[in-house]
Amino acid sequence: MYFQGLFIFSLLIISSSQAAVLDFCVGDLSLPDGPGGYACKKPSKVTSDDFVFSGLAAPVKLIPLIKAAVTPAFAPQFPGLNGLGISMARLDLAIGGVIPMHTHPGASEVLYVVQGEICAGFISSSDNKVFFKTLKQGDIMVFPQGLLHFQINSGKTSALAIVSFSSPTPGLQITDFALFANDLPTELVAATTFLDAALIKKLKGVLGGTN
Amino acid sequence: MYFQGLFIFSLLIISSSQAAVLDFCVGDLSLPDGPGGYACKKPSKVTSDDFVFSGLAAPVKLIPLIKAAVTPAFAPQFPGLNGLGISMARLDLAIGGVIPMHTHPGASEVLYVVQGEICAGFISSSDNKVFFKTLKQGDIMVFPQGLLHFQINSGKTSALAIVSFSSPTPGLQITDFALFANDLPTELVAATTFLDAALIKKLKGVLGGTN
Amino acid sequence: MYFQGLFIFSLLIISSSQAAVLDFCVGDLSLPDGPGGYACKKPSKVTSDDFVFSGLAAPVKLIPLIKAAVTPAFAPQFPGLNGLGISMARLDLAIGGVIPMHTHPGASEVLYVVQGEICAGFISSSDNKVFFKTLKQGDIMVFPQGLLHFQINSGKTSALAIVSFSSPTPGLQITDFALFANDLPTELVAATTFLDAALIKKLKGVLGGTN
Amino acid sequence: MYFQGLFIFSLLIISSSQAAVLDFCVGDLSLPDGPGGYACKKPSKVTSDDFVFSGLAAPVKLIPLIKAAVTPAFAPQFPGLNGLGISMARLDLAIGGVIPMHTHPGASEVLYVVQGEICAGFISSSDNKVFFKTLKQGDIMVFPQGLLHFQINSGKTSALAIVSFSSPTPGLQITDFALFANDLPTELVAATTFLDAALIKKLKGVLGGTN
Amino acid sequence: MYFQGLFIFSLLIISSSQAAVLDFCVGDLSLPDGPGGYACKKPSKVTSDDFVFSGLAAPVKLIPLIKAAVTPAFAPQFPGLNGLGISMARLDLAIGGVIPMHTHPGASEVLYVVQGEICAGFISSSDNKVFFKTLKQGDIMVFPQGLLHFQINSGKTSALAIVSFSSPTPGLQITDFALFANDLPTELVAATTFLDAALIKKLKGVLGGTN
Amino acid sequence: MYFQGLFIFSLLIISSSQAAVLDFCVGDLSLPDGPGGYACKKPSKVTSDDFVFSGLAAPVKLIPLIKAAVTPAFAPQFPGLNGLGISMARLDLAIGGVIPMHTHPGASEVLYVVQGEICAGFISSSDNKVFFKTLKQGDIMVFPQGLLHFQINSGKTSALAIVSFSSPTPGLQITDFALFANDLPTELVAATTFLDAALIKKLKGVLGGTN
Repeated sequence: MYFQGLFIFSLLIISSSQAAVLDFCVGDLSLPDGPGGYACKKPSKVTSDDFVFSGLAAPVKLIPLIKAAVTPAFAPQFPGLNGLGISMARLDLAIGGVIPMHTHPGASEVLYVVQGEICAGFISSSDNKVFFKTLKQGDIMVFPQGLLHFQINSGKTSALAIVSFSSPTPGLQITDFALFANDLPTELVAATTFLDAALIKKLKGVLGGTN
Repeated sequence: MYFQGLFIFSLLIISSSQAAVLDFCVGDLSLPDGPGGYACKKPSKVTSDDFVFSGLAAPVKLIPLIKAAVTPAFAPQFPGLNGLGISMARLDLAIGGVIPMHTHPGASEVLYVVQGEICAGFISSSDNKVFFKTLKQGDIMVFPQGLLHFQINSGKTSALAIVSFSSPTPGLQITDFALFANDLPTELVAATTFLDAALIKKLKGVLGGTN
Repeated sequence: MYFQGLFIFSLLIISSSQAAVLDFCVGDLSLPDGPGGYACKKPSKVTSDDFVFSGLAAPVKLIPLIKAAVTPAFAPQFPGLNGLGISMARLDLAIGGVIPMHTHPGASEVLYVVQGEICAGFISSSDNKVFFKTLKQGDIMVFPQGLLHFQINSGKTSALAIVSFSSPTPGLQITDFALFANDLPTELVAATTFLDAALIKKLKGVLGGTN
Repeated sequence: MYFQGLFIFSLLIISSSQAAVLDFCVGDLSLPDGPGGYACKKPSKVTSDDFVFSGLAAPVKLIPLIKAAVTPAFAPQFPGLNGLGISMARLDLAIGGVIPMHTHPGASEVLYVVQGEICAGFISSSDNKVFFKTLKQGDIMVFPQGLLHFQINSGKTSALAIVSFSSPTPGLQITDFALFANDLPTELVAATTFLDAALIKKLKGVLGGTN
Repeated sequence: MYFQGLFIFSLLIISSSQAAVLDFCVGDLSLPDGPGGYACKKPSKVTSDDFVFSGLAAPVKLIPLIKAAVTPAFAPQFPGLNGLGISMARLDLAIGGVIPMHTHPGASEVLYVVQGEICAGFISSSDNKVFFKTLKQGDIMVFPQGLLHFQINSGKTSALAIVSFSSPTPGLQITDFALFANDLPTELVAATTFLDAALIKKLKGVLGGTN
Repeated sequence: MYFQGLFIFSLLIISSSQAAVLDFCVGDLSLPDGPGGYACKKPSKVTSDDFVFSGLAAPVKLIPLIKAAVTPAFAPQFPGLNGLGISMARLDLAIGGVIPMHTHPGASEVLYVVQGEICAGFISSSDNKVFFKTLKQGDIMVFPQGLLHFQINSGKTSALAIVSFSSPTPGLQITDFALFANDLPTELVAATTFLDAALIKKLKGVLGGTN
């Protein structure tokens, strides 16, 4: 039969790469990780489900104070992204909701407004210049890597946004939490932020910080 | 006045970085580009508008045959992404709509279903194994770099998806167009695809190819 | 003795880096791999043989239909390449032999014609433009990352080429095999390629595909 | 003459690379830059002086309030670093001096204490955990990319440190300046930081911010 | 006509990426270059010839002393490689020919023996261990980035090898030329190599060095 | 209580990233390493001490012949640097001390003169041009990746320098040691360096080499 050869050829290519570091590396969170990400799940155990994540489908419970929530689909939640240079998250903002000032230490971000109206902005490092704008449904905005930025629901309905990152592990450092939700001594916070000790202790109190 | 010093300090930092390659590099499409992307627009001319793109907000006219459309927000359309390792696109699929088999030569992709139901999948290179699944609203799926993949509206309503890429210039190579919508001689197409010349000429005809 | 000091100095440097992630990382295929490649073989077990591969020295059996063969020296076959950003393969083409349309999802390629005459080309993604040329012995041609390309023996003798890749695991996705040599349902292939079901089933049959 | 051949060989190699993108790319700040850095100064105009920078040799005037100063040797100040993945800065801290909370959006940092005693620390993003320690002369400490960190003179003499970065353009975003030394409307600052308007306006006043 | 839509779709994609930083970046050596390589030739001026290089097809004149020659196909010689992470070179070694100890500062290398027999090796940096072996026709060997290595014709016929690099601009630093074929003062060479001044002056003389 | 919500929000973020590949990857030298570095120590076992290294604080014993010493703080010595793209080393040079010709195969270097006067230089690969200069206290100099370079105490006091590298594992290949402190046969050294066998054997003798 004429095409038989192709079939054999196919098998040849397959067998030679059976141990391959190829195409993808679904993270195996039970193994030690490295600087580039998680170790790979054995290819023979990978299924379609490894490449699909439903954790962004439903809104999560909002945080009362900020009337908002962030739901990450980073490599720890969605190991199919491991090693692929990309990840996502879902932002829910009720009326008046806010994602406070924060950075992603390891990635740039693009935001897409699924519904509602969002005022978003970032602050450049070279001259503290602020770039911000009110985004309508369907608008996208980019936030360069590592810079302080924020999102506020500026509309009259709840808002939903999908954000993408240029890394499977972008990180998320919310400035208020970084400063007040830990045991960094009040005098060090005071010395490095110019806020007074009383305010710091108050914020530490509500955010669960100590010292 | 006590805080005066800080202000001076601020100016000091600013002046020393005024020529800086910092934070972002909004693409200037009128200048020669390089392997890493476009040359940067002068920082003094950059405004908030450079970081926002509204071209994905409205559905574009669908292509009758595939009942679908792809609207890119890559660096050429949205120069604010230049150098930031990320981009987006919008997929519109009417009932029965299809994004045909294609690859992105330079990026991995994550798809988020904004509305409707989409059957999506990709084919691994090492063993031609297919990974595909029907995605509901809110589901996300990842397509590893460079692999053949597709999206089909498998639901009873029109579908909308937002896709992100791990590069500002992911590229898009639709297999049928790559093979038939150009002047590659029919005998070369035949020799390299195992399709017969009559079929190739027919497809070339409808897709605008020659030779 | 005067130079004695140098000897001690040498030992000092050695001892301080004995656990080093240095110079090379010969792949140990028995350990879990990661996004960047295989884990490293213990340096004390590495010998000269780890850096030499003879698997490209002899022609392999050609596949009758395509009258050609591809012999990879990627990291799975040649673990000394692991982490070094490069690999090789050997192409054998009998008279009339063809390497069908394919992509390497993770690497650019350079081809060197060792003997014979080869017509080679690739298709750009931005405008489906074809770049192809007949190469003589000693000519080299570059194929940019992820783009569809092909090689055909266009001469009157058998041809031999050596190809190099910008990755130790470039991948190889032959379009016909990706589309037909698996269990992707015929109706999905039809919907995403515009080929009719009868032709797809025929190709699936000869290539070992099902559904 | 016997060695004559070598001389010719040398010239051969030289002439073939005379237009080379090789070895280094001293930045030419008068040309448009790109995502990867500045365009290169013509090799024929490059001298030894391009690779040496004396701007860190002398202490700069300290800022009274923080009793400290940062003197950068980033690519804009020292164009010889362009494209080489590294840069430096000098930190001067008088008794009681402080480098306030800040991030480098594009680089990790290593600090070396040249003289004095410095208490330095950073805050992780995943759990707001603080890592800090008092460093003596000769100690080094690493601050991972993009994370909030600080340095305080904790000794009884002035302190001097040299810091290195894993990028020629690491950026520097001092949180207080980013939040208060610009025209970001007070209500946006309040909404995204949980600080009250009165305090924000006061800080804006002293730091030169408006709105 | 039914397929008409596809044609329009095709044009749509084309027009949106007409200014694209896509697929390839053939170097334009007349423009300023950057850290990542040359600026790109305008896509409209790129032809198939830009991706093909014939400069390795014919042996060059050998250097009498070393009875060998290196012919590079790096980005300066073959601008089609620009930005693609790969390059090639041809090694010709007559009987007794030698490529002296050298490094490539910016790339790993793989060597393929086209004809003859070559003894090749490299020296690790961590413990000065030497890895070397005699290679027969068809053998390949990898030389990790930046390490000292050499090739010697160890056979009874002339030898030809093709080498590939993991960068379009790998660089080539032949130790003897680096030390003796320039104006580095003899006392500095002596101090940094432990060779005596008389030998250095002799080598400088034959290699065209001064001082 | 009003701020309670924030606390819950904080916990939410924490729990979702508890397995994260985030922020840092302190090397665990007891596990197999990979091309990108060591596997990561478990985050729960990481303390402030992992990010601080005191091994550069005290001068080491100088090597009599070169009257100098190099003390590395690379990832093997300071695992907190693992994956962060940077490292340091300390250079001690007594009066007349010399760091002989060497390369770092995997990194660029910046040197800061802490005390004394140092004559330092490097040799370009494209044309063997030498760039060198006498550096005073506080001066910095950059040495591009992989190029031969040296440092000599050119002053009348001992000198101390701190050097940084653009990699946690830059490597260090001292040319004299690479050539003579191993078992590379004398005839191969002779053939590849143009030095005569007697001199090679003499140098091998003092440096501990054989063959």
